[in-house]
Amino acid sequence: MGVIENSKLTVVGAGAVGTSLAYAALIRESASEVALYDIAREKVEAEVLDLAHGTQFTGSSVSGGADLAVVEGSHVVVITAGAKQEPGQTRMDLAGTNVRILERLLPSLVERAPGAVFVLVTNPVDVLTLAAQRISGLPPERVFGSGTVLDTSRLRWLLARRAGVSTSSVHAAIVGEHGDTEFPLWSEARIGPVPILDWAGERPFHREELDEIARDVRDAAYTVIRGKGATNYAIGLTGARIVEAVLRDEDAVLPVSTVHGADDLPALDGVALSLPSVVNGEGARAIGGIPMADDERAKLAASADAIRAAASALGL
Amino acid sequence: MGVIENSKLTVVGAGAVGTSLAYAALIRESASEVALYDIAREKVEAEVLDLAHGTQFTGSSVSGGADLAVVEGSHVVVITAGAKQEPGQTRMDLAGTNVRILERLLPSLVERAPGAVFVLVTNPVDVLTLAAQRISGLPPERVFGSGTVLDTSRLRWLLARRAGVSTSSVHAAIVGEHGDTEFPLWSEARIGPVPILDWAGERPFHREELDEIARDVRDAAYTVIRGKGATNYAIGLTGARIVEAVLRDEDAVLPVSTVHGADDLPALDGVALSLPSVVNGEGARAIGGIPMADDERAKLAASADAIRAAASALGL
Amino acid sequence: MGVIENSKLTVVGAGAVGTSLAYAALIRESASEVALYDIAREKVEAEVLDLAHGTQFTGSSVSGGADLAVVEGSHVVVITAGAKQEPGQTRMDLAGTNVRILERLLPSLVERAPGAVFVLVTNPVDVLTLAAQRISGLPPERVFGSGTVLDTSRLRWLLARRAGVSTSSVHAAIVGEHGDTEFPLWSEARIGPVPILDWAGERPFHREELDEIARDVRDAAYTVIRGKGATNYAIGLTGARIVEAVLRDEDAVLPVSTVHGADDLPALDGVALSLPSVVNGEGARAIGGIPMADDERAKLAASADAIRAAASALGL
Amino acid sequence: MGVIENSKLTVVGAGAVGTSLAYAALIRESASEVALYDIAREKVEAEVLDLAHGTQFTGSSVSGGADLAVVEGSHVVVITAGAKQEPGQTRMDLAGTNVRILERLLPSLVERAPGAVFVLVTNPVDVLTLAAQRISGLPPERVFGSGTVLDTSRLRWLLARRAGVSTSSVHAAIVGEHGDTEFPLWSEARIGPVPILDWAGERPFHREELDEIARDVRDAAYTVIRGKGATNYAIGLTGARIVEAVLRDEDAVLPVSTVHGADDLPALDGVALSLPSVVNGEGARAIGGIPMADDERAKLAASADAIRAAASALGL
Repeated sequence: MGVIENSKLTVVGAGAVGTSLAYAALIRESASEVALYDIAREKVEAEVLDLAHGTQFTGSSVSGGADLAVVEGSHVVVITAGAKQEPGQTRMDLAGTNVRILERLLPSLVERAPGAVFVLVTNPVDVLTLAAQRISGLPPERVFGSGTVLDTSRLRWLLARRAGVSTSSVHAAIVGEHGDTEFPLWSEARIGPVPILDWAGERPFHREELDEIARDVRDAAYTVIRGKGATNYAIGLTGARIVEAVLRDEDAVLPVSTVHGADDLPALDGVALSLPSVVNGEGARAIGGIPMADDERAKLAASADAIRAAASALGL
Repeated sequence: MGVIENSKLTVVGAGAVGTSLAYAALIRESASEVALYDIAREKVEAEVLDLAHGTQFTGSSVSGGADLAVVEGSHVVVITAGAKQEPGQTRMDLAGTNVRILERLLPSLVERAPGAVFVLVTNPVDVLTLAAQRISGLPPERVFGSGTVLDTSRLRWLLARRAGVSTSSVHAAIVGEHGDTEFPLWSEARIGPVPILDWAGERPFHREELDEIARDVRDAAYTVIRGKGATNYAIGLTGARIVEAVLRDEDAVLPVSTVHGADDLPALDGVALSLPSVVNGEGARAIGGIPMADDERAKLAASADAIRAAASALGL
Repeated sequence: MGVIENSKLTVVGAGAVGTSLAYAALIRESASEVALYDIAREKVEAEVLDLAHGTQFTGSSVSGGADLAVVEGSHVVVITAGAKQEPGQTRMDLAGTNVRILERLLPSLVERAPGAVFVLVTNPVDVLTLAAQRISGLPPERVFGSGTVLDTSRLRWLLARRAGVSTSSVHAAIVGEHGDTEFPLWSEARIGPVPILDWAGERPFHREELDEIARDVRDAAYTVIRGKGATNYAIGLTGARIVEAVLRDEDAVLPVSTVHGADDLPALDGVALSLPSVVNGEGARAIGGIPMADDERAKLAASADAIRAAASALGL
Repeated sequence: MGVIENSKLTVVGAGAVGTSLAYAALIRESASEVALYDIAREKVEAEVLDLAHGTQFTGSSVSGGADLAVVEGSHVVVITAGAKQEPGQTRMDLAGTNVRILERLLPSLVERAPGAVFVLVTNPVDVLTLAAQRISGLPPERVFGSGTVLDTSRLRWLLARRAGVSTSSVHAAIVGEHGDTEFPLWSEARIGPVPILDWAGERPFHREELDEIARDVRDAAYTVIRGKGATNYAIGLTGARIVEAVLRDEDAVLPVSTVHGADDLPALDGVALSLPSVVNGEGARAIGGIPMADDERAKLAASADAIRAAASALGL
């Protein structure tokens, strides 16, 4: 204990996603202390040891185990626990199993870290974010999902390579469901200050090429899963980045998944999905009044309907 | 010597700007080796010692002195040498003196580092960039000025505080002359994906408020100079950031000042001023086809005219 | 306000040392918020603006001014205020003036930030650390001086260059007064695991060479002051590094200056001087039982006597 | 291509160690470009995609695949390919298989990147380092193994926690075989400047406790393998750190495994094992004249004998 309480992140779930996220958070020093919690004691203790052995080369420390006391004192709790997406399986197929895991797990997490911000990384992330907010009874901004931050990173990487600029100079976002109905807000996509369809590099972008890029982004997870059985590294970095926005109270704009109310777009009422949101020490809140083309507005409503149907089928 | 040649930055000029830039570059590890060159031997040697004494806490090293051999092997040369802007003096008043300094200095710098990218940080930066390109005879992309990168940083800081988002989530740029005729490209300014005039936070932005912010940005240097006699810290960080974009071959989009030709906008032919440009290992090149409102196009032409008049008065 | 209180550093004194320290702390993100306080309103406001204009390129924010409210909420307060060392002047000559400044200033700083750790960077740092601890009445670990951390950085830089290893692979420390009676603990100095006198590189070290290096370190500040009128960059980085050890609760071993009691070495009772100390969120405490050669023990007592004499002359 | 050739690291082997190392190198920006090579095309392409999707959050880029052209232009090649250590299996059991893999693989790697430094991370690392140096015919400093850098990180982490100081303030090293005959150089181990057996914290260290810590370090890999089936995160960070020492030409002192000649200690002639070594852009070279206690000298000879026996059994 010193003059200031240092930041603590607990990652729930010691699988490939949870440990990659903890590893990225340690290396980036996203939090002063990174804790790893899992019910599988031998596994989680081995993962903590493996991470700890590398801490000579980082400024953060790591701890963890199978006892819920691990969670105490956390400022952010990231939930990666859940059955994972198998080759051929859709994200939605996972929903029932993972909702039941949340019902068992979440109340004790909230009890141990009542003031924390909770970030869902488990899939299908939108439905699970909705379930987690309902189960916990916490204010909507305190429980949100990683949503389409990763999809947006994939989009910006593809656009940057194609246009010959750095990823940080591409401004674009995937919104909606983290899944099959997601889509890019092309009307607001820019390279530096240039609208993407006005980009006058060696080859301008055409609408068909943009559609193909959007498809590639949407299918990227399937491609990775086919080749290596899972995705873990990019989602780990993405989760660490989101944690930083909370712990550093950044007010960063990121497309995370939040539960929307009646005061947002009516089409989104009672649904969790991703829109550009301000992420800070209090959690996440969607930005209002985002300009959209008519077809984008329609796609967003369709994405909301898909999530609402899934939630309803699960009794949420 | 190892498997790879490590990056070398030489900062020319051991005044407040040059040493602040070298300090920022050391701390950020913008280059593996930072060299400082100045004709005032005692001064530059003392500055190098003062910087070197802190290198326990950085991963870069520092060297330098009053001998031109310091410059050899540089990949980037940043020129901060020149008479400095006095309280009450306009940037343009400095021009004649600083052009003459460039005429004496630049040929020997190019001789010592013939393959380097040259970045002008001395004011008035646009006229001096034009002079430097003419004097050196190097391709226009290899000689550019820090331009309105600093003004843009000031703009984004003001907008971010006002809107309650992180500076990195504000997309906006000041273009034109680094000086009295500069202006923001409001038509392309965005907070996250939201056009600035559509921003629906607690208080929306109004045109008059934006005009006032633009004035504050334009006058910021004068405010700082009145209070402390000079500006050095922000321009130091800005210079270090530009150097990184070159040395890491980033293709980052930054509003640096480049010499424009007939194939760009005709109004800009033969003038150096800032537009969003791709900065990489080859230098900087303005992005073509940037959409502008009619009043922005007119302001850009007026800014070009002001620089052209100054250049002409100097015989450039 | 978010889930966690972010770290705040206040730098007192907007001179070259204070602003260089604030600049280094911003770039390194040593604290989330860096505040600058000085009684000279126009000057401090201009320095804050100059620093703020560069924050697009950092993750920390800056604030400050001439109102003591600036200090509120600080976790660490670094005091750089004071008359500065002129060419030809010894550090001890400054003492009287700067003790009187502390007497006026410190009570109101402690009132505004009663839980903070206070770090003295003003010279002569040892006598002022003693004065500050007495004036404030705070526990000795909560008030300490930058001491010989900078001298140690200078020593390690010289040894590293001479031996052809990285600075981080040189383990050595300057102890005692930050001034003319300081000396290196050669008996414990090592390059990697090799005692310095056993180092078998191209040229082994000889005792005379080590004495010369020690002299160079001791006189380094004078050399820099002769050339540029002051030292600021290395001490700025040093101060930022010390702040990190506190705010991150690092338990880092650094040779800072602390007030010693009767339970330490009897020769040090009632004196502030530098020994390797553990620096963490509670402040700094000297390590006990450091092995020293007989001549080192004698030099340490002599250094303590010099500081005791100065303190006594000042009525401390 | 710009003014400077940016650094390229190729990681050979897309298993858990190789991809963790690539991930750590990307996040730390250990190299500008990180390439991943493996003969399993679908797997390596999926790993590259997964890493690439996170590069929005890093400054480095990633590429790779199953074609040897991936290796071209590398400055450092890290070899992680090989059969992995199974629960219950000793590191030495793996040797035969992995030597044969090197015989097939290494000549084509050297052909594609003839100027690179080669770092072996596959186990048993000492025997494989010897094999790799013989197979490649490269100078000994250009081919070295990660050796006991990881074991040393484990040791320093345990000592730091026990003594209540930061890991960076613990100076100690494990030397010899990366395996059962490794041991700490206790005679040179220090906490800050204090020899470990003189440390006078709350509880001093006793010889038995140190022996137990050494055992824990030696068995740490087995503990992790029992719990999670493999080790990957700590070795990934360790590998990334070693790569940085080479690419930044650091002259850092690290206990890597190098092939020793007759001019080193006679007991080590023709054996590869770890001693504190200077690592820079030319590779790694053991420091001569490291002081050791008599029992340490005997243990080192025993460790060399164990490796020599293994090498001889493999016909090396």
